[in-house]
Amino acid sequence: MEFKYFSRNGDIRPIEEAHIPLSNIAYQYGFGVYETIRVENNEALFLADHIERLHESARIIGLTHPFADIERNVAALIEALQGDTYNLKILLIGGDKPELYITASNPLFPDKKLYRDGVHCILYEYERPFPHAKTLNMLQSYLAYKAAWEAGAYDALLLDRDGCIREGTRTNFFAMKGKTLYSPPQEKILLGVTRKVALKVAKENGYEIIEKDISLDSLSEYDGAFLTSTSTGIMPIKSVDSHSFEPFDESMITLIRAFDTYALKSSRKR
Amino acid sequence: MEFKYFSRNGDIRPIEEAHIPLSNIAYQYGFGVYETIRVENNEALFLADHIERLHESARIIGLTHPFADIERNVAALIEALQGDTYNLKILLIGGDKPELYITASNPLFPDKKLYRDGVHCILYEYERPFPHAKTLNMLQSYLAYKAAWEAGAYDALLLDRDGCIREGTRTNFFAMKGKTLYSPPQEKILLGVTRKVALKVAKENGYEIIEKDISLDSLSEYDGAFLTSTSTGIMPIKSVDSHSFEPFDESMITLIRAFDTYALKSSRKR
Repeated sequence: MEFKYFSRNGDIRPIEEAHIPLSNIAYQYGFGVYETIRVENNEALFLADHIERLHESARIIGLTHPFADIERNVAALIEALQGDTYNLKILLIGGDKPELYITASNPLFPDKKLYRDGVHCILYEYERPFPHAKTLNMLQSYLAYKAAWEAGAYDALLLDRDGCIREGTRTNFFAMKGKTLYSPPQEKILLGVTRKVALKVAKENGYEIIEKDISLDSLSEYDGAFLTSTSTGIMPIKSVDSHSFEPFDESMITLIRAFDTYALKSSRKR
Repeated sequence: MEFKYFSRNGDIRPIEEAHIPLSNIAYQYGFGVYETIRVENNEALFLADHIERLHESARIIGLTHPFADIERNVAALIEALQGDTYNLKILLIGGDKPELYITASNPLFPDKKLYRDGVHCILYEYERPFPHAKTLNMLQSYLAYKAAWEAGAYDALLLDRDGCIREGTRTNFFAMKGKTLYSPPQEKILLGVTRKVALKVAKENGYEIIEKDISLDSLSEYDGAFLTSTSTGIMPIKSVDSHSFEPFDESMITLIRAFDTYALKSSRKR
């Protein structure tokens, strides 16, 4: 669909004005934070979690701003857009005159086949500087994702200096063994909103969660692996670089079904 | 002065149009490179060096683009602006539809007293990911400079994981001992245009140049230190964090004078 409006500092504006001056140095140099939120049936999913993380991202990089009721700005834009299912991006830019932009875009729905067969991921050596902050300092994530795309892969997994997989460029990473899920240590990764939901669903369904470093060399010790993200939920991984996982066992399929059921219910409830 | 025009993809446009769509993801995520160039008497100083580095920066991050004659685009903007002394910023943005923007701004002239007394620098732990590329992946440099500004310092010196000073946030760093200049190894730093000029002038005036890692702990072994940049030439350093240098000796003063004489001649010649 086409989106006729966006939000700037709380005002609903025509989409033709959705641009930013080249003289905005904070934006040019990445002094900003953002969130991507799924809207379904005109409801922003897990909005409170996203807004809380946006504020936390800003706090981490010392970005002060006057925007206190971003939930209300989101609601006003959803009301104006009269859409159904789409993504919203909230962009909070720092500097002398902080700015808050909210724009809508059409989501990409991954091929259903991928959920059945799993995806291929490449590797890219990079540690994000402020793991808990979702900032515009994105060049290396951009390059990693570009490399994945050019290789026909679904995402690039970011490898730290110790040879451990921390996360994807726009996804959280998990490994599995039976009914145990392994996550890289919290302090090293973005605390994804969908990751949080997946962990909740997993616990409710009798899975155990263990946090530990997951080295590339240790992948063969696991039965499988998957990614989580706002736009794709739980996405199973078929292969990482030259390592292939066995076809998914029942634990993976059960988890994906439980997640889908929860997400659907949660979206209907709101 | 006020600048009435800027350049977009080679076209001279009114300054009111100097903005960029929020939908430009390459720009938003820092997939771009830039140069800042000093214009004096309507001549862009060391233009060929800057354009060459811009292309090299683009090459390093895999940014392909169709802009082949940026010199001509710069000349056209200078002609349109009819200014005298100012800075130009060239911004080359990648992605599906690469864009080339050239904008003008008023330079900041540092207080003359600083050239006599030297400046104070703080430290900030950060290694730029692509040392030879001047990219928009600037959040940490922005934060480092902000920390310097808030501390009343002139710049922040970027400290690598080995405890060595590599460069400032917008400056190259040198240490001195008598008539010997020490530069951090070339492969670890941005190859500044003013740095190149300073090295040329130094060699012509009988200074020896040695490349080596300069650890924070070793600063007391040097007589002094200085920064180079397009906008400030050679700027002596008075203190780094808690370390103070002795008042400058004759070698520093001679070098600054020789640099100024060369820069002036070079600007008149062009």
